[in-house]
Amino acid sequence: MDQEFSSVLLENAVTALSRLPGVGRKTALRFALHLLRRDQSEAIAIADAIADMRRGIKYCSVCHNISETEVCPICASPRRHKDTVCVVESVRDVMIVENTRQYSGLYHVLGGLISPIDGIGPDMLQIDSLVRRVAAGGVHEVILATGATVEADTTNFYIYRLLQRNAPDVKVTQIARGVSVGNELEYTDEATLARSLAGRIPFEL
Amino acid sequence: MDQEFSSVLLENAVTALSRLPGVGRKTALRFALHLLRRDQSEAIAIADAIADMRRGIKYCSVCHNISETEVCPICASPRRHKDTVCVVESVRDVMIVENTRQYSGLYHVLGGLISPIDGIGPDMLQIDSLVRRVAAGGVHEVILATGATVEADTTNFYIYRLLQRNAPDVKVTQIARGVSVGNELEYTDEATLARSLAGRIPFEL
Repeated sequence: MDQEFSSVLLENAVTALSRLPGVGRKTALRFALHLLRRDQSEAIAIADAIADMRRGIKYCSVCHNISETEVCPICASPRRHKDTVCVVESVRDVMIVENTRQYSGLYHVLGGLISPIDGIGPDMLQIDSLVRRVAAGGVHEVILATGATVEADTTNFYIYRLLQRNAPDVKVTQIARGVSVGNELEYTDEATLARSLAGRIPFEL
Repeated sequence: MDQEFSSVLLENAVTALSRLPGVGRKTALRFALHLLRRDQSEAIAIADAIADMRRGIKYCSVCHNISETEVCPICASPRRHKDTVCVVESVRDVMIVENTRQYSGLYHVLGGLISPIDGIGPDMLQIDSLVRRVAAGGVHEVILATGATVEADTTNFYIYRLLQRNAPDVKVTQIARGVSVGNELEYTDEATLARSLAGRIPFEL
């Protein structure tokens, strides 16, 4: 759509907003016109919230989760178990695990997964810092909590080997892959079912 | 989803972004995390573009389209035909008509349609200013270019009656409603087809 704009300011806003993920120029224009219709204060509040967030948020020096302080609230909390480290791909995944309210250990955010096809090697991720952190002692278990993709499997295998070499006494576990809760067996794909069979555990009441 | 945030700045940004139309908290979080991953300059550019647009854009004192100047470029252009005024619902509709490149007259943006159910009366729209503008002279034709909804029909009828009383010599026309270009008759709904029949025009080559 070769939209002609009557205003350079509007065009600039549309171009900027269309850089958001999944937002094309049409949606960006809808956002911009919406902001023009509403109170000026509302648009300024959005602009300020974006700028404040981007300027204010740093990354935790221990686990690389987002943080407003040098060490994030999770790493600094005396209530979290420091002997367990859950390795996740992204900041987003920390939130997802936290939302289960089932985990009371610490995290380590990799910042991505090894993916040769996308040109992402181990040195671009927080893998070295994980190994150093675990090798320094005090950690009994490392939980690999990544998705069930080829990249995740590759990354897990790479981390596992490094940990075996540098911290052989630390237990390395992986979250279970299997039938989703609420799902019928009929609608579970074969690869998942195979994993689910191989990863079977003793029945408990 | 009762998402727990590790950062107040992130939470504020998500709350602000989720006020955009069609954006829920999940999408707003995706936007925020995307902005955190990219260069700081990109996030600041978006924030600045929103604030600059909202602070800089005014409304044309003649046609009520958005404008960076007192009178918008369309109203001020010597190349536009000042004797024709196209009445549209919104700023968005001006862009849509402009994109056809078939119209060389002026516009009048109502800022909405009469809709008792939404509590929008004629006094909340730019109808009085339209009638005054047309009654002042120099306009030969007013084109009602609204959608094909009950609200549009009500608004058109209201404007038509006012113009008849205040500027009886001005021609009032309405854009054609009919079969969409490229559509089969089979897939055209009955109301549209009925309108299309009633609004038939002489066949021309």
